[in-house]
Amino acid sequence: MSSNSPHDNDYAPAVASSSRGSPAQEDEDFDDGVEDPADELLTEDPLHGNGHLNGGVSFKRAQKAARPSFASRFLPSPFQSSRTSTPTPSHGVRSGHGVQPTTGNILSYLNLPTDPSAGIPDSKDAVSLDWYVEGPGRRVGYDDLTAIDWIYEYSKERTRLRQLVSNAPGLLGQLKQVADASQIWWILVATGIAVGGIAASIDVVSDWMGDLKQGACSNVEDGGKFYLSRPFCCWGTNSYAECADWRTWSTMLGVSNLFGSYVIEYIFFVCLSVLFATCASLLVNRYSPYAKQSGIPEIKTVLGGFVIRRFLGAWTLVVKSLGLCLAVASGMWLGKEGPLVHVACCCANVFMKLFDGINGNEARKRETLSAAAASGISVAFGSPIGGVLFSLEQLSYYFPDKTMWASFVCAMVAAVTLQAFDPFRTGKLVLYQVTYHSGWHLFELVPFALIGIIGGLYGAMFIKLNMLVNRWRTSKHNPFLTRPVLEVIIVALITALVSFPVSFLRAQSSELVEYLFAECRDISDDYLGLCKAGIANTGVIFILLISALIGFLLATVTFGLQIPAGILLPSMAVGALYGRVIGLIVEVWQREHPNFIAFRSCEPDIPCVTPGTYAVIGAASALAGATRMTVSIVVIMFELTGALTYVLPIMIAVMLSKWVGDAFGKRGIYESWIHFNGYPFLDNKDDTPVPDVPVSQIMTRYDDLVCITATGHTTTSLRELLGEHRFRGFPVINELRESVLLGYISRTELTFALETASTSRAMPSTTECYFQHQPLADPTVTLDLRPWMDQTPITLSSRSSFGLVKDMFEKLGLRYIIFTDRGSLTGLLTKKDLWYVLNEGEVGRAGGLGTGVLREERTDGGEDERGLMGDHDGADADGHGDGRGEDG
Amino acid sequence: MSSNSPHDNDYAPAVASSSRGSPAQEDEDFDDGVEDPADELLTEDPLHGNGHLNGGVSFKRAQKAARPSFASRFLPSPFQSSRTSTPTPSHGVRSGHGVQPTTGNILSYLNLPTDPSAGIPDSKDAVSLDWYVEGPGRRVGYDDLTAIDWIYEYSKERTRLRQLVSNAPGLLGQLKQVADASQIWWILVATGIAVGGIAASIDVVSDWMGDLKQGACSNVEDGGKFYLSRPFCCWGTNSYAECADWRTWSTMLGVSNLFGSYVIEYIFFVCLSVLFATCASLLVNRYSPYAKQSGIPEIKTVLGGFVIRRFLGAWTLVVKSLGLCLAVASGMWLGKEGPLVHVACCCANVFMKLFDGINGNEARKRETLSAAAASGISVAFGSPIGGVLFSLEQLSYYFPDKTMWASFVCAMVAAVTLQAFDPFRTGKLVLYQVTYHSGWHLFELVPFALIGIIGGLYGAMFIKLNMLVNRWRTSKHNPFLTRPVLEVIIVALITALVSFPVSFLRAQSSELVEYLFAECRDISDDYLGLCKAGIANTGVIFILLISALIGFLLATVTFGLQIPAGILLPSMAVGALYGRVIGLIVEVWQREHPNFIAFRSCEPDIPCVTPGTYAVIGAASALAGATRMTVSIVVIMFELTGALTYVLPIMIAVMLSKWVGDAFGKRGIYESWIHFNGYPFLDNKDDTPVPDVPVSQIMTRYDDLVCITATGHTTTSLRELLGEHRFRGFPVINELRESVLLGYISRTELTFALETASTSRAMPSTTECYFQHQPLADPTVTLDLRPWMDQTPITLSSRSSFGLVKDMFEKLGLRYIIFTDRGSLTGLLTKKDLWYVLNEGEVGRAGGLGTGVLREERTDGGEDERGLMGDHDGADADGHGDGRGEDG
Repeated sequence: MSSNSPHDNDYAPAVASSSRGSPAQEDEDFDDGVEDPADELLTEDPLHGNGHLNGGVSFKRAQKAARPSFASRFLPSPFQSSRTSTPTPSHGVRSGHGVQPTTGNILSYLNLPTDPSAGIPDSKDAVSLDWYVEGPGRRVGYDDLTAIDWIYEYSKERTRLRQLVSNAPGLLGQLKQVADASQIWWILVATGIAVGGIAASIDVVSDWMGDLKQGACSNVEDGGKFYLSRPFCCWGTNSYAECADWRTWSTMLGVSNLFGSYVIEYIFFVCLSVLFATCASLLVNRYSPYAKQSGIPEIKTVLGGFVIRRFLGAWTLVVKSLGLCLAVASGMWLGKEGPLVHVACCCANVFMKLFDGINGNEARKRETLSAAAASGISVAFGSPIGGVLFSLEQLSYYFPDKTMWASFVCAMVAAVTLQAFDPFRTGKLVLYQVTYHSGWHLFELVPFALIGIIGGLYGAMFIKLNMLVNRWRTSKHNPFLTRPVLEVIIVALITALVSFPVSFLRAQSSELVEYLFAECRDISDDYLGLCKAGIANTGVIFILLISALIGFLLATVTFGLQIPAGILLPSMAVGALYGRVIGLIVEVWQREHPNFIAFRSCEPDIPCVTPGTYAVIGAASALAGATRMTVSIVVIMFELTGALTYVLPIMIAVMLSKWVGDAFGKRGIYESWIHFNGYPFLDNKDDTPVPDVPVSQIMTRYDDLVCITATGHTTTSLRELLGEHRFRGFPVINELRESVLLGYISRTELTFALETASTSRAMPSTTECYFQHQPLADPTVTLDLRPWMDQTPITLSSRSSFGLVKDMFEKLGLRYIIFTDRGSLTGLLTKKDLWYVLNEGEVGRAGGLGTGVLREERTDGGEDERGLMGDHDGADADGHGDGRGEDG
Repeated sequence: MSSNSPHDNDYAPAVASSSRGSPAQEDEDFDDGVEDPADELLTEDPLHGNGHLNGGVSFKRAQKAARPSFASRFLPSPFQSSRTSTPTPSHGVRSGHGVQPTTGNILSYLNLPTDPSAGIPDSKDAVSLDWYVEGPGRRVGYDDLTAIDWIYEYSKERTRLRQLVSNAPGLLGQLKQVADASQIWWILVATGIAVGGIAASIDVVSDWMGDLKQGACSNVEDGGKFYLSRPFCCWGTNSYAECADWRTWSTMLGVSNLFGSYVIEYIFFVCLSVLFATCASLLVNRYSPYAKQSGIPEIKTVLGGFVIRRFLGAWTLVVKSLGLCLAVASGMWLGKEGPLVHVACCCANVFMKLFDGINGNEARKRETLSAAAASGISVAFGSPIGGVLFSLEQLSYYFPDKTMWASFVCAMVAAVTLQAFDPFRTGKLVLYQVTYHSGWHLFELVPFALIGIIGGLYGAMFIKLNMLVNRWRTSKHNPFLTRPVLEVIIVALITALVSFPVSFLRAQSSELVEYLFAECRDISDDYLGLCKAGIANTGVIFILLISALIGFLLATVTFGLQIPAGILLPSMAVGALYGRVIGLIVEVWQREHPNFIAFRSCEPDIPCVTPGTYAVIGAASALAGATRMTVSIVVIMFELTGALTYVLPIMIAVMLSKWVGDAFGKRGIYESWIHFNGYPFLDNKDDTPVPDVPVSQIMTRYDDLVCITATGHTTTSLRELLGEHRFRGFPVINELRESVLLGYISRTELTFALETASTSRAMPSTTECYFQHQPLADPTVTLDLRPWMDQTPITLSSRSSFGLVKDMFEKLGLRYIIFTDRGSLTGLLTKKDLWYVLNEGEVGRAGGLGTGVLREERTDGGEDERGLMGDHDGADADGHGDGRGEDG
């Protein structure tokens, strides 16, 4: 890496010599010339003909005055490049008059700093202008796959609100403020209604398609009604056996012999399963790679302050919803619960685009998304409060109190909407609603605790195995590395082949869970044969155990395929299976040995043990083991069963499950995926003690930093600097020897400033640039870059403890902290550095962490770090990568 | 204020000259010589004979090796001075071997910094020692009524955990860690059980005493059973009229004529009411002033990071519990719901004393208290999830996710305990549990919205009036200023006189609410005459309206008296009253005009309007208006009614109520009290935009600061400095001209260091003190104060925006931020300064805020500021102040 020697001549680039390729400072994830991931995705697309700006980040929108059409705003065709969403210069507030900020009107502030009333269409006044010159600097949106600056976003919002107040006094102003404050409510109410509607549709469609695997409704008289699912087709009959309208495929084909009809039904079952799965996978692969899997790890990362473009787009919403219907209908071991959270976030994101006040602020966007996420779980389980707590416990990063209320409103609207649609015509909100006729006895706490421990073991094993499978899946030993659809087909085939012979597995997971939760006396039509008495129970226990094992293995393989798939319902199903097994064992034991000391508290004539409750507790424990959530699970189960009675056992099982699971590894399934995918997510819920070292042992030291001096640069030298180094930003110091810190300038802003200077203002390449007040400089022939610089970066003493630094990153949402000693720059730590230290440095964390270890690991880890956000899924060669970033 | 000129001689105190009595830096709230508030309270007490240390903060515990006895640890007699709870030197970790830290063993570290294995009983190793020399410095506990330093407490906890890991390897170490982690669970489970038990006892006792006002249970046969309340006495009878065992006072006295019996009963009712109220008030006044009122504003302040000694003590717990029984029984317009939160916190605090790991850390203490607070609301309303959300929404300041689970466990245990005690023998958890037979119609949204708006108006008026009453109460125009008990007696007298004639008011508030919530067809014994039909309804409506008005006025006067009293239930009662009124009006209207277009959706034969639901919605709206909570109220109501059906109307009413209330003033009743009492509480839930000024316009500038230079001081000069200035801390700079910031030392630590130097080490008063590394200094004859100094204070550029500074104070829990420019000190802002700017500077905030305004206001406001935490309740002259601090 070449570094120009300073002071060669007055205009030579003065760069602090960098002794080696320091991995600190935020490395750029892309090469400048590399194509946008969206474009990459569409390289085969013949419609795609947009040219690229050569060199530098694209600022197409800034040069484009026309607004995108209304329709394209919501549903950008996947066949067109979505370049319109590349960074726009956002200078604190968006222009209040609907004028898109252009290079011209941004620069006009620079030239007219003292005349705020000169009819500039933007609503800046002198005070806030001053703030920009003095404060955190002007910004140019965010690149894809970069971290947002919470502090900046919140101060931007404060400025916007203040201007709203000051610009419109009187009644009109009041109304404007009310309108502004109500934006979030419109978004959330609309989201709630949309999510409720989508969930109802998915329920209806996937049920119908799921039943289609076994037969179809064909009214004997008129032959129609094929559009009805089995429960509706058989509406009014007491059991499926009596239902004449519902005809299996073998009946329809007129095959009556037992073996023949079994084979026919088997074939239909397998073929339709595979067909549905293939369609779902193809949809995802062709049209929206972000629609795959559950989306929750990505949502966590986005809410944690990361920009992933198109992840929450309208196209993702459409593909995910359709894909979910197909995937659920295919009967694979996956659930729609987690993905519904993604659907909810997509809905909110789409509605958000109507309101610039929220859409223009990345922090408020994330608050709104946190709130909307609750509606997903709300409709999935019919548990609005559970949804709010899920969002709070699992998803959100910053969750202020007002967000809780917003979240609650959204979740409730969604629940009420779903209830109004009433897709199952039961009048109940949830599929699995159960009420039990009796309470529990003290001796049952022992099996309950056992279930909790099994849940923890299940969770730990599931996570370990799933990670193993995924490591294999992304390795080059995987023959399906470039053919993910084929992999889906094979898994679907195996699932269907295995599931059909086992009665419990043939049913949809949701149906199975409902069935297992129920008390035998409430099951009127025991078509799965669960409620056998006496010795037949042993057979049921065996089948249940086999089902649990098969389900566990299939879920392990399925979670991670290129198909919309959640893990909540499969976990619940596995948990309900082994829970019911234990319940049946206890029931049999109690019935055989009623005089055993533990069973003394049972009353003689009524059933003492309710195996259904064991299934509920098993489901809760499996959920807790897999996700490591606590409150939300208990509340969801509480809302399912609707009684305080069983809350205490559920709590005990959940707690034990979490403890046992945590003993094998702290990360839940979602955190494991975040870690596996290398998403730059700082887990503020992780309270593992950090090494007790001063931050000076972790930061990138001054000697290794590339700094910009305040004077002595020209546009050319700065361009060269940008070309040579890929860091996301550069500290600005007064001069190399004294190195007093003046501020920090990001790559994006610097590039933009240089770009506009040469294009809009036609400045020559020898124009002098400075970052300090230059009283004698002529503003027309020199370039003052101070407005683009963060002049008040957060600084700390380099003797501060690492724990404090971590706290500040997490609580304030910083992107970087600069370390100074008596004013002069001593080092820098970026969010990515911190993330790297916390994640990859884990070996060092466990042992005695020395300076050398960390630093060296960080150097060695350069390659790993470059692999960040890289495509692990191997789909790229297929031309349909998951759209994530590539590094140069 | 005199200031010594620097450089008079080598050892003269070098103090930056302070031009005026700058109110910045944290002023000391007490004069050094003033008595401890606890002593103040007990000046009349003949038993009290403890001498005081003259001058300086007391460090009695440090000089005392013996531990307080076990009993006194839990229940310090109010007749003894609680001086044992004055600050103890806490040096990061408490000694792991049960040895109280004494001056001696603290100082031993100073002398033996390089020999960690020399058999010092404390478990420090060389690394953490180094951290203390370099890091945030040693600390000496907190004074009463000071803010805690969250950053420091959390880093202390991290150090403790790390040492726990490193000190005990192997299985024993694992067990120790598990034991350490389980401490909080023992505390919370114990708290839950205790709170459940206390709540059940309070319910039983207050019901019995409340019924005693009207009569007593005297079994006709054997004359006994006086200990039964009316429902238990009449157990098995269909209505109170049929119940022979329950005899009113007039029956017992043999008065049979109608007028005579009315008078007799009136007299008994009034006398007993006043008697109960007087006892409650006397209890509070004599034994524990902190037990008065609801305690929620104080809990919020404590959880926000403020130390109020004895507020959560065992004595407060006992007095509050007893006082609550009496106060509720007196029939005044107050509730036990809010105070139960205080009771729960007291329980947790008492149990916490068993576990040094939590008791020794102010931040963890607060986490535990946040969790415990949930159990209060959980038992009050039988709503465990509502309790958790109440704690989250209303009380807590920092509420990490693990706290939510802890909180949930505590709330659930309390609820289950209460259900196990089953004080009402109903088998139900809540007193007001209701289920409705029908849903609501779309046209009803109009009256529901109206109820919401009324709720907002009620809340706004209540807060305004209550604040007016309190301003009068603390003014010198109040004739009861020194006789709070007399005031309670008069209010109780008026309440009783007014309540007896109005049937609805004669019942206990909780009974009234239950009654109003019920559907008429479910009321078997309509002894209050609510369910009259036809024209008689007009009378009921009128009486309900009158009751609502009287209740409102009485609640306004009652909330703030020296008696344990909450505002949640009275608000609910008022809301239920006006809600039922509107419900009755709509019902009558619908019955009279069934063909009106809005009523078309009603089915012809069944009742269309359920007035009980209007009462529920009214109660929710009144709660929302008074407290400005949202989610918790909806969840509490949801758990009360147990159906999703009415959640949407409740949400709409709560939302409208909050909006209308907020239009009249953003603060809820608790925030208003915090503001009124001047508690130093930074509301992190308040998102009012702050003025857009650089912090340099708000901070105390360098010129106005009293700084300590690193060299050139002796112990005497520092003592003089401490004597002259009352500031809570001093920035340390290298020298006056250059003023490079070296650190910050608190008054407490400086005092303690000087104290121990002269006592334990017998250093002469001319000993040289320094705050910088002095290579040539002899450590035996000079005093190195660096270990006591925060050497890495949080610093910011003084050009940072005020918003950022506020964010940092709130999110990181800082006590002060120091502002530097290129390393040299430019200013200081303390939490109290910020609080002052945000609260008192409100006039300036609304208008265009200029520099001068703020600074000047701050100077003028010195007196106000000194009044902080002063005794507003005028009880001091009575000898029984509320124990809060006094300033010199």
